[in-house]
Amino acid sequence: MLTSTVNTSAAQVVGKPQKLLDGRDRVTGRTRFGGDIQLPGLLHIRLVLSPYAHARLERIDASRALQMPGVVAVLTADDLPPAARQPRSRAHAMLAHERVLFRGQPVAAVVAATEAQAMDAVDAVEVEYEMLDAAVDPLLAMAKGAPLVWPDGLPGESEELAAHGAAATGPAEAAPERSNIAATSHLTRGDAAQGFAEADVILERTYRTPIVYQAYVEPHVTLAEPSPLGDGLTVYTATQSVFGVRQTIAGALGIPETSIKIVPLTVGGAFGAKFAVFQPLVAAVALRLRRPVRLALTRSEDILASTPAPQSIVELKMGAKRDGRLTAMQARMIFDAGCFPGAPASIAALMLGGTYRLPHLAIETVEVLTHKPSVGAYRGPGATQSTLVLEQHMDDLAHQVGLDPIEFRLRNASDEGDPLPNGTPFPQIGLRTILQRLAEHPLWRDRGPAGSGRGVGVAVGGWLGGLEPAAAACKMDRDGSLVISVGSVDLNGTNTTMAAIAAETFGVPIEKVRVVTGDSDSAPYAGAAGGSKITYTVGLAVQRAAAEAKQQVLNIAAERLEASADDLEIVQGAVQVRGVPDRKVALKEIGEAFMRFGGVVEPVYGRGRSAQLERAPGFAGVLAEVEVDEATSETRVTRLVIAQDVGFAINPLTVEGQMHGGAAQGVGWGLYERLVYDAGGQLLTASLMDYTVPRAAQTPAMEAVIVEVPSPNGPFGARGVGEPPIIPPGAAVANAVRAATGVRVSELPVTPEALHRARQAAT
Amino acid sequence: MLTSTVNTSAAQVVGKPQKLLDGRDRVTGRTRFGGDIQLPGLLHIRLVLSPYAHARLERIDASRALQMPGVVAVLTADDLPPAARQPRSRAHAMLAHERVLFRGQPVAAVVAATEAQAMDAVDAVEVEYEMLDAAVDPLLAMAKGAPLVWPDGLPGESEELAAHGAAATGPAEAAPERSNIAATSHLTRGDAAQGFAEADVILERTYRTPIVYQAYVEPHVTLAEPSPLGDGLTVYTATQSVFGVRQTIAGALGIPETSIKIVPLTVGGAFGAKFAVFQPLVAAVALRLRRPVRLALTRSEDILASTPAPQSIVELKMGAKRDGRLTAMQARMIFDAGCFPGAPASIAALMLGGTYRLPHLAIETVEVLTHKPSVGAYRGPGATQSTLVLEQHMDDLAHQVGLDPIEFRLRNASDEGDPLPNGTPFPQIGLRTILQRLAEHPLWRDRGPAGSGRGVGVAVGGWLGGLEPAAAACKMDRDGSLVISVGSVDLNGTNTTMAAIAAETFGVPIEKVRVVTGDSDSAPYAGAAGGSKITYTVGLAVQRAAAEAKQQVLNIAAERLEASADDLEIVQGAVQVRGVPDRKVALKEIGEAFMRFGGVVEPVYGRGRSAQLERAPGFAGVLAEVEVDEATSETRVTRLVIAQDVGFAINPLTVEGQMHGGAAQGVGWGLYERLVYDAGGQLLTASLMDYTVPRAAQTPAMEAVIVEVPSPNGPFGARGVGEPPIIPPGAAVANAVRAATGVRVSELPVTPEALHRARQAAT
Repeated sequence: MLTSTVNTSAAQVVGKPQKLLDGRDRVTGRTRFGGDIQLPGLLHIRLVLSPYAHARLERIDASRALQMPGVVAVLTADDLPPAARQPRSRAHAMLAHERVLFRGQPVAAVVAATEAQAMDAVDAVEVEYEMLDAAVDPLLAMAKGAPLVWPDGLPGESEELAAHGAAATGPAEAAPERSNIAATSHLTRGDAAQGFAEADVILERTYRTPIVYQAYVEPHVTLAEPSPLGDGLTVYTATQSVFGVRQTIAGALGIPETSIKIVPLTVGGAFGAKFAVFQPLVAAVALRLRRPVRLALTRSEDILASTPAPQSIVELKMGAKRDGRLTAMQARMIFDAGCFPGAPASIAALMLGGTYRLPHLAIETVEVLTHKPSVGAYRGPGATQSTLVLEQHMDDLAHQVGLDPIEFRLRNASDEGDPLPNGTPFPQIGLRTILQRLAEHPLWRDRGPAGSGRGVGVAVGGWLGGLEPAAAACKMDRDGSLVISVGSVDLNGTNTTMAAIAAETFGVPIEKVRVVTGDSDSAPYAGAAGGSKITYTVGLAVQRAAAEAKQQVLNIAAERLEASADDLEIVQGAVQVRGVPDRKVALKEIGEAFMRFGGVVEPVYGRGRSAQLERAPGFAGVLAEVEVDEATSETRVTRLVIAQDVGFAINPLTVEGQMHGGAAQGVGWGLYERLVYDAGGQLLTASLMDYTVPRAAQTPAMEAVIVEVPSPNGPFGARGVGEPPIIPPGAAVANAVRAATGVRVSELPVTPEALHRARQAAT
Repeated sequence: MLTSTVNTSAAQVVGKPQKLLDGRDRVTGRTRFGGDIQLPGLLHIRLVLSPYAHARLERIDASRALQMPGVVAVLTADDLPPAARQPRSRAHAMLAHERVLFRGQPVAAVVAATEAQAMDAVDAVEVEYEMLDAAVDPLLAMAKGAPLVWPDGLPGESEELAAHGAAATGPAEAAPERSNIAATSHLTRGDAAQGFAEADVILERTYRTPIVYQAYVEPHVTLAEPSPLGDGLTVYTATQSVFGVRQTIAGALGIPETSIKIVPLTVGGAFGAKFAVFQPLVAAVALRLRRPVRLALTRSEDILASTPAPQSIVELKMGAKRDGRLTAMQARMIFDAGCFPGAPASIAALMLGGTYRLPHLAIETVEVLTHKPSVGAYRGPGATQSTLVLEQHMDDLAHQVGLDPIEFRLRNASDEGDPLPNGTPFPQIGLRTILQRLAEHPLWRDRGPAGSGRGVGVAVGGWLGGLEPAAAACKMDRDGSLVISVGSVDLNGTNTTMAAIAAETFGVPIEKVRVVTGDSDSAPYAGAAGGSKITYTVGLAVQRAAAEAKQQVLNIAAERLEASADDLEIVQGAVQVRGVPDRKVALKEIGEAFMRFGGVVEPVYGRGRSAQLERAPGFAGVLAEVEVDEATSETRVTRLVIAQDVGFAINPLTVEGQMHGGAAQGVGWGLYERLVYDAGGQLLTASLMDYTVPRAAQTPAMEAVIVEVPSPNGPFGARGVGEPPIIPPGAAVANAVRAATGVRVSELPVTPEALHRARQAAT
């Protein structure tokens, strides 16, 4: 096993802020996205969406639509591979079959020469529905006699959530037959009753967290083009997961994975929502028509028909002693999975019961199906919901035991060796360090008395970190520059991180490194860009690939310089004998030596492989200062400090970007965002006019505090940084509102209306 | 160093005929070529070609053309990078500057929205020329006072020929100033005068070989698309050389290689002509206009403006003793390089003086410039010309010493350890084995008496084989299949050969292997597909990559099976303990183990690197039977036997294909093909109506005899097979004509007219 041999304090590249490799393209608007891709003879798909949450599909009459100009086909589930009619997962349910299960579910696909023609024809497709009663609220959906989402038995588990690493606890127990409960699980330690008996203070409350839309800039887009001979196809798609999408399409279409080539496109935001959703449909249409096709959703379609983060209802009871030590937790977490199973209940339970030391605990999770879109991942899936709940509860418990909220947390915070609810001990983590850093911060130290419409809140939370094997290649080019090949998608600057890792390891400036994300045929294997795992897993493979390439270069130079490779170093574009700068050979001389006819040295071409066996959990903590308008109950976040343990910040610029972006989204969870369905399952917030994403004016001034508690296995000690920053801000804001107003709003987001009602109830 | 561990007699895949991986696409006409590629906003280039061989460019007036519909630009050398105005090579001479140097030289590039619009506008570009005297015939061009091609000094050496490995002798001596002689070289051994003094028989004659057009099916085609930000571009091109084209474009445009991405297209035939010719022009136009552009030549343009094989004029004198031993050779080989240096004089001299043991030799080569298109490589460049000459000479010498022509050759044929004219000894070669096999063949043994209009001729010749470092990657996919990544272009089934090598090495059927030729960014390094070097060099890298992947798989399985990796083998899709077929783990189980979230084994991803240091020369021999029409002097080849030492035939199907194809082209050299220029430099054969390529009716029934004298370093003992089969057939046919008619036509091809004249002269 190769371990980092670089003392990061002497590092030349890593640890320094590096501009994004593709930053210039992006800021000048020249980056090409799926909507910019042209294929000869490209046809366009538009979808007929169900206007009802639950209905029987009586008849689909496309005859009028088929007469319209440019229309090539109108396809229904009957025209698609069998999986569409007996779907194991949402991605397999390409078009509704016999019944529609949520408002916005695609019912038919109209294919036409232009997008406008297809759009016109959508309106001409006549669909006859028989409306059925819908199960919309998860509590009502759990009740006996509720309309069943799957009256004939549950489909298979969703693949997306599994891929995101949210299935980390023991096996889920089978749900009782013929109900909307897809799965339940129980995690216990000790004896909760005894724990509560030992407690001086007990707090019990039910919380609700909202359904949240991931609100990426670019709606879903996919193109598919059949191979000329018809036994395969190429799929161009904005996805987080090159190989995952390939596997899902293969399963849905019943064709070998090896007949599919996935070409990943630049992704205009994903946040967990862009594993595989519409790709099987687009692929099936292309193969059926033997023509290249594109599906690009509109914003409204995307909100209606994609896979939002699940709402949760959490009944939480915790006990503590006067000295601040927690004694017990009892919880029931209900996740509303929508119409297919796949809620992140396991990870939620682990973080709910694992963030603090709890001698006794009993956590039950329940996954309920409803007539709503099946849920997907959203940055920190499950952990965000748990932390929103847990950290509000902890704040009020601190209040009850009369301790400073940070001090209270420090007395209970988990550390290396403390067990998760499933018994797995934490490796080295930075949770306590973060709490200490927050405690010392002026915004906390000097926060003054609570109340008076202004308050500062605190919250912490973390993410265990995903693991997946990965490989990478590193070749040296003629001029001594490097090309790194990876199979991971560059969602948020990871390719720049890979460049930094390779540059540091090999010994060249980062400008001398290009990074190529290959297609599924040419790329080395890597998992999805999700779960905060790319830097931790692919980064290690890149480090090893670059180290191997370096060793090859040193060996070649050793022969030329008549020196031992061990005595050589790469400095300023040349290999030189350590301490004898005159004895050197330029990298470009070595490049020339093998990139030519008759060359006598082997090309410099290294490969790295990794399989991380231990997670590197990342924690973040937030201090939020709010002002609450006395008259309107509107909350404004005025300052936000986010401290995050990133292990080692390979590129502080993108790390801070992740912290800022996550924190902004976390504020959305706390104050603004919520998909609202009426009792019949109609979505009331199907546009960005109705669904409130925090914009610049709602995003506070932020301070990012990078904490570096090295992970033993990450490249240069790095941990994954993607998920943690979204996890604590919502609770920190809610706690700040509590500090400013003395009122607890247990159902998020803390809208002015909700806060107004809570204040009225409190008086 | 990994050496072949497979006993080829026990091989499962190599040595068996394998259909081309892309054969089905090709025979059904679904393969996509450059002409099929669409890019959004694609513009089309058409060229204004010079009607004169030598002229001063007085004025180019594009004003009328620019008014025509769809025309975007008309560019001249002044609009291109400086290299166009001071070209070091033909590829740099993107458009003529100040003077045109050959009939058909591009003078201006018209760019329009459609190809038809561009074609119309070409006629509207008004070019004023001042005609100049031209040097056309190479002998006249060498004379004092001849019009100079480069009155101000010679440009740099052509890169194409160097890339093709034709520059293998010592440094060329500088030519005298201010003449059309670009270079001369001398190779001597012993004392030729003494050798001739020892000879009993001396034969001296001057031969001419024709200018030959490579006559691939697909004329040159290239597309170029600027990067959005303008600091680079992507070039889609039907080329033999991914990295070579990139280097040439970079040099011509003065931009870094790393800013250029070459995407190699399926090549519709190349035969040496498709290194880099028009790519710099297309790239320069794209960057200048900042629009994607395509240039696809018509057939006539391609014949006029591409890079044919050079004509040679060889003064050859050889002496032999009565017992058949050669005593001396003296030769002067004049190559007509056209308007840029780059004729394959070195390799020609090596094969002329190296095929047979010669105690004394003196070979002079002269490279002459003329006002004709600069020459390029054509399958076996230089070796074909030498062999055409040498083998006619050897036949007549055999006649003179009264020996059977094969017996005469056997008494002199070089073998392992015999020196080339430059002193390098041959490694193990199959020349003598081939001659023995031909001698035993019924067509030779039972050939009957010469004369009577029917005759059988023999000839042998060989190719030293190119060398270039190469790398390759081998990854295992989820289902246990393999993907091989290479940087070499699949010209003639080499990817199928790579699949066979990987399948055999790893232990899976060939159907389980895909081969990806990457672009210049993603692909491991490989040299051009030329010089018969891909199987020998890239094949070894593939073998090593597959071996490494296999070892990784065995190591993973060893842990699972609790066995030593050394005791494991891959059989029928599983790793099993040798002799214990029950103890096994399926390859797909291993694939599943790393291609998933939370997997704990590293991905199977091997890489191989090669730098062959020793050539593996390949020889071929041909028996040709002809019938000569008494009245018309038309020669028809009725039977052809070609025996070739391929070392080991990894895929006998493609090896035979190469032998058939090369032999057919060789017959073209002997009987049909010739570009004819008049004294003023006008090409008289600028279409396939005038230029005779042998078609099915002219191609004889062939028998391919595969001879396998293993090369010590090639994968499974393989040698390169591409060049040798074109080398001897022309001489064999000429010798058969001699046998049939008693007449020697020393200027090829042996057209009816030439033979008629020769017969008349002989009577």
